[in-house]
Amino acid sequence: MLKNIDPLLGGELLHLLDDMGHGDQLVVVDRNFPAAATGLPVVHLGEAPMSRVFTALLSVLPLDTFLERPLERMEVEGDSAKTTAQQDAVLRLAQTSHPQPLEWGIIPRLEFYKRAREAFAVVHVLDPAPWGCFILHKGVIFAEQH
Amino acid sequence: MLKNIDPLLGGELLHLLDDMGHGDQLVVVDRNFPAAATGLPVVHLGEAPMSRVFTALLSVLPLDTFLERPLERMEVEGDSAKTTAQQDAVLRLAQTSHPQPLEWGIIPRLEFYKRAREAFAVVHVLDPAPWGCFILHKGVIFAEQH
Repeated sequence: MLKNIDPLLGGELLHLLDDMGHGDQLVVVDRNFPAAATGLPVVHLGEAPMSRVFTALLSVLPLDTFLERPLERMEVEGDSAKTTAQQDAVLRLAQTSHPQPLEWGIIPRLEFYKRAREAFAVVHVLDPAPWGCFILHKGVIFAEQH
Repeated sequence: MLKNIDPLLGGELLHLLDDMGHGDQLVVVDRNFPAAATGLPVVHLGEAPMSRVFTALLSVLPLDTFLERPLERMEVEGDSAKTTAQQDAVLRLAQTSHPQPLEWGIIPRLEFYKRAREAFAVVHVLDPAPWGCFILHKGVIFAEQH
């Protein structure tokens, strides 16, 4: 535990998030995702709701303002227009800390499995909502943010 | 780098500070201190001024309110009444984030070497001021602090 840091961000996760630089990608996945098979470091956050996880992550991790779509989600049932309530909540939440209008990047399920392997680390969440898989592109921290 | 976290607190140090629990001790030492010989993990912060290091550490690490003297310093020249300007600055700074009046715990130099070996980790600082050696006792983080 640390003062002034979200308690969901334990030492191992803070270490990984800090090691990430501009453009590195963090994969956040639901309980069905083949996280260990990516071969990446996996941090397990347990039964936290996905919106709770994003609140914690985005308190220290800026999304990339250099990209048009620094936040991607898994496509729902092969229909790029479809979203889950959980995905909607994540986008709303991410928008509050991002200075530009955010739109989803959308990744079909099988392509998501491949993309995940190119990331820096995986955060595994037991939130039961389906299609709860996301990729965050880390941005730059400007002097006024520290 | 992480948003909203002091940039001096890199991933390795955050991991160590987070792993510390109530009562664990952090040793912060100057460039002459035999840090590696403690056998503890040592994090090197380079040429930061000591007050800068304490600002960063105390932004996430509470001192122990259960103890009368949760902040200790190395005794100066065998005279327990003597302090350096650097030590005075550290105490003033620590007081601003501690809810009780802070008084130094004072440890003679050779005893400090022994005490350091019982700590959790060492932070090594290149600030050239002499007698710049401290022990911090980690306190509890209450719900309102996160």
